[in-house]
Amino acid sequence: MSIKVLLNEDEIPRQWYNLAVDLPTPLQPPLGPDGKPVSPEALAKVFPMNLLEQEMSPQRWITIPDEIIDILYRWRPSPLRRAVYLEKALNTPAKIYYKDESMSPPGSHKPNTAVPQAWYNKKAGTKTLTTETGAGQWGSALAFACSLIGLACKVFMVRISFDQKPFRKTMMETWGATCVASPSTETEAGRMFLKKDPNTPGSLGIAISEAVEAAVTDKTGSTKYSLGSVLNHVLLHQTIIGLEAKKQLAKIGVKKPDIVIACAGGGSNFGGIAFPFVADKINGEKIEIIPVEPASCPSMTRGIFAYDFGDSAGMTPLLPMHTLGHNFIPQPIHAGGLRYHGMAPLVSQAVVEGLVTPRAVAQLECYRAAIQWARTEGAIIAPETSHAVAVTIQEALKAKEEGKEKVILMNLSGHGHMDLLGYQKFLAGQLSDYSLPQEEIEKAESEIANLPKPSAKKTGKW
Amino acid sequence: MSIKVLLNEDEIPRQWYNLAVDLPTPLQPPLGPDGKPVSPEALAKVFPMNLLEQEMSPQRWITIPDEIIDILYRWRPSPLRRAVYLEKALNTPAKIYYKDESMSPPGSHKPNTAVPQAWYNKKAGTKTLTTETGAGQWGSALAFACSLIGLACKVFMVRISFDQKPFRKTMMETWGATCVASPSTETEAGRMFLKKDPNTPGSLGIAISEAVEAAVTDKTGSTKYSLGSVLNHVLLHQTIIGLEAKKQLAKIGVKKPDIVIACAGGGSNFGGIAFPFVADKINGEKIEIIPVEPASCPSMTRGIFAYDFGDSAGMTPLLPMHTLGHNFIPQPIHAGGLRYHGMAPLVSQAVVEGLVTPRAVAQLECYRAAIQWARTEGAIIAPETSHAVAVTIQEALKAKEEGKEKVILMNLSGHGHMDLLGYQKFLAGQLSDYSLPQEEIEKAESEIANLPKPSAKKTGKW
Repeated sequence: MSIKVLLNEDEIPRQWYNLAVDLPTPLQPPLGPDGKPVSPEALAKVFPMNLLEQEMSPQRWITIPDEIIDILYRWRPSPLRRAVYLEKALNTPAKIYYKDESMSPPGSHKPNTAVPQAWYNKKAGTKTLTTETGAGQWGSALAFACSLIGLACKVFMVRISFDQKPFRKTMMETWGATCVASPSTETEAGRMFLKKDPNTPGSLGIAISEAVEAAVTDKTGSTKYSLGSVLNHVLLHQTIIGLEAKKQLAKIGVKKPDIVIACAGGGSNFGGIAFPFVADKINGEKIEIIPVEPASCPSMTRGIFAYDFGDSAGMTPLLPMHTLGHNFIPQPIHAGGLRYHGMAPLVSQAVVEGLVTPRAVAQLECYRAAIQWARTEGAIIAPETSHAVAVTIQEALKAKEEGKEKVILMNLSGHGHMDLLGYQKFLAGQLSDYSLPQEEIEKAESEIANLPKPSAKKTGKW
Repeated sequence: MSIKVLLNEDEIPRQWYNLAVDLPTPLQPPLGPDGKPVSPEALAKVFPMNLLEQEMSPQRWITIPDEIIDILYRWRPSPLRRAVYLEKALNTPAKIYYKDESMSPPGSHKPNTAVPQAWYNKKAGTKTLTTETGAGQWGSALAFACSLIGLACKVFMVRISFDQKPFRKTMMETWGATCVASPSTETEAGRMFLKKDPNTPGSLGIAISEAVEAAVTDKTGSTKYSLGSVLNHVLLHQTIIGLEAKKQLAKIGVKKPDIVIACAGGGSNFGGIAFPFVADKINGEKIEIIPVEPASCPSMTRGIFAYDFGDSAGMTPLLPMHTLGHNFIPQPIHAGGLRYHGMAPLVSQAVVEGLVTPRAVAQLECYRAAIQWARTEGAIIAPETSHAVAVTIQEALKAKEEGKEKVILMNLSGHGHMDLLGYQKFLAGQLSDYSLPQEEIEKAESEIANLPKPSAKKTGKW
């Protein structure tokens, strides 16, 4: 029985997959403050043109430069593992496979896009990258990539995670980056949010505002901003995960998974594994594809599909996405990477089309799943990843009830070595669940009431 | 250019290598309090008979049971990587290869023996394992192994590391183990050392005393003790590292390494990679083999080759080894796994024979090496591992000076994700070096003056 499927160097995918080309209804464009589509030129202060071309590319397949492959090969192709010990503990007929993205030096899937983003920026003449980070996985990944490729890196880290995970800062500094808690006093946006609430836990939306401001206000023009999720080119880079998984499943004779599961904060880890299978679903395959979000930050399951800002200060273009409102400040749950008010437009559109079926899980169920995972499969996973594991367990138990030998494919997005405070509190019985009150949704509705509306509709096909 | 050499499942070594059989002078036996060799039966209260048989085995090759292979296969064979980015940064003609043992779920080489030890104990009817841990790598590994195999696990963790690395305890608890700071109030030995110095940072020697006591005083007889280094059977299990490395080097056409480097605390990580190459050296190959120790705990470079206790309370048999005296309390350096007064008898004997040539490195040089490694090779390594990296850099620069294209093989024993406090202090300029005063060596000499003397001598052949 194969408990680990590896690919050789020459089997690494050489192209990224662009789902935008295959979506039944075309993806709606980002809009400027005037309500008109934003041109790449208008965004050129923030991102280099080579990445903006990818963001809006009409090509289905985009070649990965050899120099990027050389770096990715440090930890890719990532192993496809079978969770035999968990299967046995659950006594399920389901076969659970998972891509192990925790093997990268920073410990998550994030370097899959950090490396290309740093590489394209370097090529375009960028000297410094600014970014935000939630739990710290993304900030670490960009610090790592900038270190290898030779760029300076400045990270705005959401306050609550900065406090919960002090060593993430040390990690980024070890790779030569600088890291400050957000909101900070270094930007106008940061000072504004601190004035509104000096004790704010911060949010990804606020940190994005700060990082974008820090980039566009640099007068040399050699500072750009880098985003770890949400945007099309970010999800594009992550599709290498799903493309590898397909080759690995084929290698052991598995035609297709019945269910694909990944956690979703901004959507890059989910899109990374899921999009190549969404393509198959568009082409007629029967696959259930589940992005999992926290019950306390349920953009897809309870949010509104609308045009909204990607950040809290309203500095980004308006994106067509599921949102809880750009002023939404999520509860300080431990899965910091899932504390985002919005969702990637590509994932949101797939939700609207009915191609993927989101599910929300509460914190305690996730930690229970993480503990069961550690005691069976061995690895201590990130709190974000535990959302995927919780639904994997739900589905494996459902398969047992139904007596069906389903194939489940899960994305293990990262390890939890930097997240042990959450485990400690859970084991000590100090964590509790939180369900978002309906008033918060109503607040979001009024907040976006005067923004343009996207027109995508469910086709009813899936 | 191969930057990563993988082995397939069917290439995993099926036997461990027992260096004891090939040492030019026979390994001298452990002695009891009466100065006579200890029989396996006398140790049966502490270890199960199946492991004691391995400890004293006269066989060169010992078959690895398939059930153990099945578990090891979760993370083995470990990758052999080439440090191309570091080579470039150093501008060295040397080729630096390293075994990456950080890929195991607990993050070090330790599970290579934790899994067999738990498995053999389970087979022998053990219900609970007790152990000590320094930095926490070993305690985590045994907690992990016991969790997979179904044993209870109790860990005594050296106080200084317990305080420096609070989340190691959470990690062990996540795998279902219990963990207390040592010296603790739970054992007679612990209470004695606390009485002597209530503020003691603890040591591996003290923690071993506590763990052994906790095992032998359990009246049900189903509690055994497990050691993470030093003993023959522990080093035996680790030889899988070097055996894999040989296959991997052969795969890319490298006949032999010129230099083999690994850090050495108790000796298991060093012995694991080095012993198969020590065998080659005995058979005439020219290889420089370097165990690296901290300048502040220099058992091999400044200690005495003598019979001494493995623990501080004198509960273990007398072992023929390099020692700083069993009452030696090392400085609280951050490489907790190297804070041990003694050295594995097998390694000590190889030092006496001149087969391996130990080197000591001070703390600051190690952290500088660790930072350079992170910013070139990407991984944040354990402070223990940084000792091997420091000497690897020394040797790579020497090769550059000499203009020689040497092949260096290093063992990357573990990641440093749980050790970031040391990095933080180093980056803040708060760490300093410490050189052991000569009085400490004289103290050790008088401490062991009345113990039996081992008779091994340098053959002068190497």
